[in-house]
Amino acid sequence: MPENFADRLIAATHLKHSPSCVGIDPDYSKLPASISGHREMNDPSDSEAALDAILEFSRRVLKIVAPFVPAVKINTAFFERYYSQGVEGYYELIQDAAKLNLVVIGDCKRGDVGNTSEMYARSALSDPDFSNLDDMVGPDAVTVNGWAGLDGVKPFIDVAREEQKGIFVWVRASNPSAAAIQEAKLENGDTVCEHLARQVASWAAGDGLIGRSGYSAVGAVVAAKDHQATARMRELMPHCVFLIPGYGAQGGTAADIVPAFKPDGTGALVTASRSVIYAFNDPKYASQFPNQWEKCVEQACRDFVADVAAAIKK
Amino acid sequence: MPENFADRLIAATHLKHSPSCVGIDPDYSKLPASISGHREMNDPSDSEAALDAILEFSRRVLKIVAPFVPAVKINTAFFERYYSQGVEGYYELIQDAAKLNLVVIGDCKRGDVGNTSEMYARSALSDPDFSNLDDMVGPDAVTVNGWAGLDGVKPFIDVAREEQKGIFVWVRASNPSAAAIQEAKLENGDTVCEHLARQVASWAAGDGLIGRSGYSAVGAVVAAKDHQATARMRELMPHCVFLIPGYGAQGGTAADIVPAFKPDGTGALVTASRSVIYAFNDPKYASQFPNQWEKCVEQACRDFVADVAAAIKK
Repeated sequence: MPENFADRLIAATHLKHSPSCVGIDPDYSKLPASISGHREMNDPSDSEAALDAILEFSRRVLKIVAPFVPAVKINTAFFERYYSQGVEGYYELIQDAAKLNLVVIGDCKRGDVGNTSEMYARSALSDPDFSNLDDMVGPDAVTVNGWAGLDGVKPFIDVAREEQKGIFVWVRASNPSAAAIQEAKLENGDTVCEHLARQVASWAAGDGLIGRSGYSAVGAVVAAKDHQATARMRELMPHCVFLIPGYGAQGGTAADIVPAFKPDGTGALVTASRSVIYAFNDPKYASQFPNQWEKCVEQACRDFVADVAAAIKK
Repeated sequence: MPENFADRLIAATHLKHSPSCVGIDPDYSKLPASISGHREMNDPSDSEAALDAILEFSRRVLKIVAPFVPAVKINTAFFERYYSQGVEGYYELIQDAAKLNLVVIGDCKRGDVGNTSEMYARSALSDPDFSNLDDMVGPDAVTVNGWAGLDGVKPFIDVAREEQKGIFVWVRASNPSAAAIQEAKLENGDTVCEHLARQVASWAAGDGLIGRSGYSAVGAVVAAKDHQATARMRELMPHCVFLIPGYGAQGGTAADIVPAFKPDGTGALVTASRSVIYAFNDPKYASQFPNQWEKCVEQACRDFVADVAAAIKK
């Protein structure tokens, strides 16, 4: 039975007892040797061999993490790297993740003006509406760029409403230079980022978007890098689930994520990408499980989930 | 011989005596009946038939407009609509346009934080660096989303510098709701959009980016909807070529574009999309050339080029 995206996401986090998400950013140069060294995949100068390797890796990561996390975020850039075949692989992974009952977030940061955004909303978020593709599903949610304001985001909101899907508008980025734009102060005292957050909050409160959980199908990507700023985001967007990138490799810590949650422990989905999927390159795990990359990923995923749980409980 | 992108673009506009660009936004529902009604392409519920139709249309439009305009802007959204096969078609069109000696701008509005933007810069802008794809070229330039600031744009700038390609950072959008974000006033009196423009100007002045023409490989997408605001953009970004969307269908007029140009007639590339490629749906052209869609497109393209020339000469 279709159900509001935010409600489904929250039910999935309850089922796994964790508001966590693993980011699938597969980079050939970081793959375990047992995959990239395979005789059919050991040629990174051949796009098909390289793509086969990153898909094999990604499929195995999905299976490893599925018992522990409710959601995965698949980053389109790492698949577009391999052109049309990479895009085909991206959609195959979405099908695989859906079969594992994972909530699938397509991290594509799409967005443009009206009629172009309509095309993006159809391709990036909708379940395909073509008769020859009727057994294929789109992701459950996507990340959206809000630079063009509501006109550019509305087509995604419409698809979210019609198909019980979700969006996360990119409000606050995790990288240092984003501050030069996002933290600029407006006349009224808001930062640019707070100003966008207010608008996202009003979009999130639109007709038919808020579920029984009190959360909207319209959420926000919010980097948690500073307690006070995150608390302010939480205050400004009460109905939005926050998709928090950058846990682990991008420098985020468990303590940073706390203000993104409400006191009842809901309201955010914390994503770790590189720190989990490349754990076999981390001496901490590699020394514990030498030459067992899957064990490393599993342990890093368990540790990530435990860290998030401990941070929220405090 | 490789040459700075801005220099190449300006040489191409001199060759065609026009700083104009046709936008390829092919929408199945607007195609001429002679294409969408063809027995192998008359089923929009089949993604392959629909894609065949939009590709056939796009290829014919490229041939029609190539004698008149120096550049085309191919909008990825309209191809991603058809999933991986659409992306394959997008790259095929890039090859076709390059063979027609058109400067090709991929309108993809990509952008994210550092390592993800690196992947996007490689896939969306680079010539493929895979041995099995070595006869394939990428576009000459792409549009980039600057929300994450320099970290997110730098990977594109690096590719532009290394491969003599170009980027257009999306500074000012043409749609009405963009103003709610882009025209917000900062404490220092700048609008958010002017604030971004200042940053783009500094990126554009970076090492190895400015060509003999005085223009940089880093340009800006600037909607020309208000004389004073456009003049201000021109002042703030002296080394940037402006890619101006929205001529015709989005409400832009020839007079609006004037302040985007410098007094010598350089500095901007004006794009018309729907008003040219769907001219056969416009009574003005349909009555002149009934049932001759290609004639309509040709005439609309000639008229567009003439309008731009007349506006600049004034």
